[in-house]
Amino acid sequence: MRQVAILGVGQVPVREHWELSIRDLAVQAARAALEDAGLERADALYVGNMTGGTLNQQRQLGALVADFLGLWGIEAVKLEAACGSAGSTMRQGIIAVASGEREAVLAVGVEKMTETGGQNTTTALVGAADAEYEGIQGVTFVGLNALIMRRYMHEYGYEHVDFAPFPINAHANGAHNPNAMFRKPITRATYEKGRMVADPVSLFDASPIGDGAAALLLVPAEKAPDAVRVLGSAVATDTLAIHDRKDPLWLKAAEESAARAYRQAGVGPDDIDLFELHDAFSIMAALSLEACGFAEPGEGVRLGLEGEITPQGRIPICTMGGLKARGHPVGATGLYQLAEATLQLRGAAGAAQIDGARVALTQNIGGSGATIATHILGRTE
Amino acid sequence: MRQVAILGVGQVPVREHWELSIRDLAVQAARAALEDAGLERADALYVGNMTGGTLNQQRQLGALVADFLGLWGIEAVKLEAACGSAGSTMRQGIIAVASGEREAVLAVGVEKMTETGGQNTTTALVGAADAEYEGIQGVTFVGLNALIMRRYMHEYGYEHVDFAPFPINAHANGAHNPNAMFRKPITRATYEKGRMVADPVSLFDASPIGDGAAALLLVPAEKAPDAVRVLGSAVATDTLAIHDRKDPLWLKAAEESAARAYRQAGVGPDDIDLFELHDAFSIMAALSLEACGFAEPGEGVRLGLEGEITPQGRIPICTMGGLKARGHPVGATGLYQLAEATLQLRGAAGAAQIDGARVALTQNIGGSGATIATHILGRTE
Repeated sequence: MRQVAILGVGQVPVREHWELSIRDLAVQAARAALEDAGLERADALYVGNMTGGTLNQQRQLGALVADFLGLWGIEAVKLEAACGSAGSTMRQGIIAVASGEREAVLAVGVEKMTETGGQNTTTALVGAADAEYEGIQGVTFVGLNALIMRRYMHEYGYEHVDFAPFPINAHANGAHNPNAMFRKPITRATYEKGRMVADPVSLFDASPIGDGAAALLLVPAEKAPDAVRVLGSAVATDTLAIHDRKDPLWLKAAEESAARAYRQAGVGPDDIDLFELHDAFSIMAALSLEACGFAEPGEGVRLGLEGEITPQGRIPICTMGGLKARGHPVGATGLYQLAEATLQLRGAAGAAQIDGARVALTQNIGGSGATIATHILGRTE
Repeated sequence: MRQVAILGVGQVPVREHWELSIRDLAVQAARAALEDAGLERADALYVGNMTGGTLNQQRQLGALVADFLGLWGIEAVKLEAACGSAGSTMRQGIIAVASGEREAVLAVGVEKMTETGGQNTTTALVGAADAEYEGIQGVTFVGLNALIMRRYMHEYGYEHVDFAPFPINAHANGAHNPNAMFRKPITRATYEKGRMVADPVSLFDASPIGDGAAALLLVPAEKAPDAVRVLGSAVATDTLAIHDRKDPLWLKAAEESAARAYRQAGVGPDDIDLFELHDAFSIMAALSLEACGFAEPGEGVRLGLEGEITPQGRIPICTMGGLKARGHPVGATGLYQLAEATLQLRGAAGAAQIDGARVALTQNIGGSGATIATHILGRTE
């Protein structure tokens, strides 16, 4: 297997794009990635998306996007793993290039969540959970995360306000990202005033959904010696329903996929300069930090309280706003994370730049931890 | 890239399985494939499915199926390309093994179309087309195929009854397949009495939807010297909407993917002993035969009239019943085709056996030809 490099990055700002369809979003991001790479064509297209079948009535997004990119004939397919769809898409794109099967692969994540043809977004999102054992109880996806957060607070003795550093850091960082949906820092007072969505998940603990698309153009590293490299790539799974896990507070698929990615990259948590984690909910940020070796179980929240997750801290997270400030177009998120990490490693993250960033970790979570895609990217020089 | 072999085959009979959920269907087929291969585990799982997000409220089928197979932790993802989902799934499974990344991959196709939680199946299926340019006109997926069939009849001067050999052959062959939904031969008189669904597509020109799952266990060929080999594998795309094609009667993605697969396998149409084609509609059978080099444009129907598509003919098609008699659980179909071709090459097709079959072609079509997956399988000895 040969090494893979990221030659092009394309992003559509996360917004409520009432004037853009799912095809427009995907095509804009993919074109931007091609342009950034200085290429006219890709020879395969992998599209990550979660709700397009229901909300946009499209069940063949690979062909659709290839068609409107003018890349007629190329191999294309859509991949789905709930909110982990785009991370899983990156993974398959990497295998296609690493194997020697492809020379230039577009990995695109896209989600169109406004204008849903009368379909209910909350209902579509609970498809991330187990429909027959969780969804059927009437629990929403926010509700499932509320159960986990409540258990964590009980188990480790935290108060709600202890989670404040996660959204405060995300919104402070997002203010520097032109592609972020929200670019206004928040204070601890703002956090405390946030209304409850599903107790104890308040407004600022839950990421906003949105419309968006992000794309990367992948090539063999020997063809792009200066480009950011993929050092590690792994997807692991866990039980779909939370009640089937031995410990609902441990992201086993995060631990497992991170372990594989660390092994491939030959690095460990101490070598990571920034971590684009999946803060769909504040509790998920804490659990990711713990499962990836940055904190002991129950100590992820403490890392926030001690200021270690900010750009100046030991492990900067959500450096471009994370899911909370950049926004969470569910099936696109994993590729936004990878796009942002690539910009950081290029030194092209503008005011959000982490000085001297050389190795970045990204982690994209499907459901309450059932599919987790972990990637490690590195600078060459 | 190393060669890939098919070590295990598993199928659930296509039926209206009112007592089985989408997870049950997928798990049963996958377990059967593992058992057939004599293996306890696979190290990755690729699941093909089209409508599960809407009809079954599951948007993370990879993790769900891995979970209930007891394969906790393994990499898993769902792939979607409308009715071409399972062929595309096989393709990614092959790349994973051929690349050296994986040693034992389960490729599973599954669809659960009865009990749809109040959702409309016809609406879900039109997601195979372009929602904004085709679906919005109110056209159904059968309606789109009716437009193509009408045009073909007009262009080449055929009558409706000239298409009779396709369903007659399919139903005659399906009678020998225990996994087929319909096991009763039909006559020309039955065909002529079939009521119109969307003129000129009559009841026997359209395949029945159903519940089902089929699975293959893929390993490196060096580990299974006697197993059926994958000789060629390709996916190509075309415009999603029919009106965007220069010629609506030519399946460009079939021609292109077949050309790639022939090249990889080092064979041509004359070397093919049987062809499991995508007869979702009679017209698609004709167009597939033409695009893959078995007939000149406009002559696919003639091949049927001349008896060349039967088990005794020049190019036996739909040898286990095809989509029409086996049934068409949309996102599972591509893997049923591959499972059936594998059984034929093993000499294990029972009364449906094509004598001396050594090389088989399979072709799985998403939408009206927008994503087409073509595979060539071969016997070793």
